[in-house]
Amino acid sequence: MRVDGLQYANWSEKIFRQMRKGGVDAVHVTIAYHEDFRETVLNFEQWNRWFEQYPDLIMKGQWASDIERARETGRTAIFFGFQNPSPIESDIGLVEILHSLGARFMQLTYNNQSLLATGCYETDDSGITRMGRQVIAEMNRVGMVIDMSHSADRSTLEAAEISQRPIAITHANPHEWSPALRNKKSDVIAAVTAGGGMLGFSLYPHHLKGKSGCTLDDFCQMIARTADTYGATHLGIGSDLCQDQPDSVVEWMRTGRWTKEMDYGEGSAAAPGFPAMPTWFQDNRDFGNLEQGLRATGLNSDEVAGIMGGNWHRFFAENFGPQG
Amino acid sequence: MRVDGLQYANWSEKIFRQMRKGGVDAVHVTIAYHEDFRETVLNFEQWNRWFEQYPDLIMKGQWASDIERARETGRTAIFFGFQNPSPIESDIGLVEILHSLGARFMQLTYNNQSLLATGCYETDDSGITRMGRQVIAEMNRVGMVIDMSHSADRSTLEAAEISQRPIAITHANPHEWSPALRNKKSDVIAAVTAGGGMLGFSLYPHHLKGKSGCTLDDFCQMIARTADTYGATHLGIGSDLCQDQPDSVVEWMRTGRWTKEMDYGEGSAAAPGFPAMPTWFQDNRDFGNLEQGLRATGLNSDEVAGIMGGNWHRFFAENFGPQG
Repeated sequence: MRVDGLQYANWSEKIFRQMRKGGVDAVHVTIAYHEDFRETVLNFEQWNRWFEQYPDLIMKGQWASDIERARETGRTAIFFGFQNPSPIESDIGLVEILHSLGARFMQLTYNNQSLLATGCYETDDSGITRMGRQVIAEMNRVGMVIDMSHSADRSTLEAAEISQRPIAITHANPHEWSPALRNKKSDVIAAVTAGGGMLGFSLYPHHLKGKSGCTLDDFCQMIARTADTYGATHLGIGSDLCQDQPDSVVEWMRTGRWTKEMDYGEGSAAAPGFPAMPTWFQDNRDFGNLEQGLRATGLNSDEVAGIMGGNWHRFFAENFGPQG
Repeated sequence: MRVDGLQYANWSEKIFRQMRKGGVDAVHVTIAYHEDFRETVLNFEQWNRWFEQYPDLIMKGQWASDIERARETGRTAIFFGFQNPSPIESDIGLVEILHSLGARFMQLTYNNQSLLATGCYETDDSGITRMGRQVIAEMNRVGMVIDMSHSADRSTLEAAEISQRPIAITHANPHEWSPALRNKKSDVIAAVTAGGGMLGFSLYPHHLKGKSGCTLDDFCQMIARTADTYGATHLGIGSDLCQDQPDSVVEWMRTGRWTKEMDYGEGSAAAPGFPAMPTWFQDNRDFGNLEQGLRATGLNSDEVAGIMGGNWHRFFAENFGPQG
C-alpha cells in the first residue's frame, strides 16, 4: 500500500496515470492555500469534474476503506485538505460543512498568523487563539485532522496538547537533519508522535539536506534515524510534490492576497521559482525508489510498508470519522 | 412507517418532540426559499447544530436506509430540499456539492421564472430552459429529485419528459378537487405518476377544498379517488406544515428579495398571513388522524401504509443515489 500525505500538483490525466504507474493508492491533495469558502467549493467542484472524467484512474476518498476500494479497482483515492484555515473564514460551522464535502486535513496556519494559531514565519508565536481552541474541538468532533506543517513551534506544541485526537505534520523533515525554517525541531516531533500523530517526510527540495542534490540514501537514512527515535509507526511520506506547476503558483502559495509585496518564502530573489526535484523523485512513478531506498537502510519490511502507506492508512481509519 | 414529503416549520425542540409523538419517521424539510448558496450553507449549519443538540430526537437523513435507522432508534430522519434553485445560483457544479451536503429535492422554480423553468405565477410558460436541461441531467446523475410543486404546467410536463428518473410534486392536490393555482391538473399528475413519480398531498389550507374548514373525510376521499385514477403507489403526504412561523415568513416565502412590492401569493390583502390549519391537522401529532381517515375510505391497509410513508420510502431508495 502506498499513500502520499501531501501533493499539490497541476493535475492532469498524465499525472493520474503516473499515480497508477507508481502504485499510489491514495494521496492527500491540497485544495486550498488562501481560498475563502466559496473559492474552496469551486475547487471541490473541479475535482468532482475530474472524478467524472477519469473514473478508471481516480476516485474521491472519504474514509480509510476507500483506500482498499481504490486498490481493488486499480485507482487512486484522492483525499482533500487545506494548508490554511481560510476556507472556514470566521465561521466554525463550516468545519462540519467542509468535512461533509470531504475535507480531512486542515492546517491551522500557513506561514502567517491566522485566526487560529501562529505560522512559522511570524516573529512572535502567541500560540492557539480563542477561536483556535474552539475549532480544534470541532475538528476533533467531526474528524478533520489538525495539520501543523506550516505552524510555529509553540502553536504546534499547544495544538498537540489541546487536541483530544492525534494531529499531523503532513509534510516536513527533522530540523536537526536539515535546519530549514519549515523543518521540525525534536520537541515538536516528539509531541506530535507521542500523541499518536504522524510526521510525513517531505521531498520538497527546500526541506532536504543538500536541497535538489540530496541523495536517496541520505533521505532514507534520515527516515531510518527518525524511526529509531520516534518509532516507525508514526511516520509516512508527505512528498509535497508540486508537479507541473508554473512558478506563478509558488508565488500564489507564498503571497496569496495578504501582501502586495513579493515574499520569497523558502526561495530567494535569485531563485524565486519551484526548485528542481531530486533525480530519484521526479513524479509519482518514483515511489518505488523510496521503497527500495528504505529497504536498503535495514528497516524491516513491516516498517517499510508502514512508512510507505500502512501508517497513513491506520491514521486515516482512526481520525476521519466522528469522535468516539 | 410515516414520512412527510414537505414541512417548513419554525423548528424547535417542541416540534421535534411532536414528531416523535406523531410517529413521524422522516420529513423532507425545506431549507431554502430564496437563499443563495452561502445562505443555504448557513441553513445546513443550523441543522447540524440541531442534530448535535437533539441527538435523541432527530438525525440527518441522506438515504432511505436512514429512515429505518431513525425508526430503530426512535428518532425522526430529516431530509433536506430547496423550494427554488437559488442555492445553485448559476453554477451547475453546486448540484453535486449540495447533494454531498445532503440536499435531496430541488424545485426548478418557486412561483416565478427561474434560470431553469417557469413558475406557476408567471403569465407565460416557456418551458425548461437551456440551463434547465443541463441541471435536470446533473440532478439525475447525482440523485437529487426534481420537484415541480410551484412550477407551471408546461415546464412540469417537459421536466417529466426530459428527466431520465422519476420526478415529484412534493406538496399539492388535484386541481379538479380544489381549483387553486398551485393545485395540479390531471395531465400533470398523470405525467408525473406515469413516470414513476410521486404526488404528496398538501394540507396547506389554500390547497384544500373549503380551505381551513376542509373536513378530514373530504381530504381522505380526495386521496382515495386520486388513488383510483393514478394508482396508490405514487401517492404520499406532503403536508406543507409551516408550524409556529410568524407571518413575516410567509411574506419572505412570497417576496424574497425579487420585489419591493407586496405580493400576497395565495393570500390576499385582507388575509395576508398564514391561514389556520384544519382542526384535524394542527401539527405532527395528527398523522394518526390521517391514517384513520384513509382507512375509513375503504383503501386497504397496504395502500394506506404506502400513502402514509412506504411510497416515499421506496421513492427515496430509488432516487437519492447516483444514476445506475
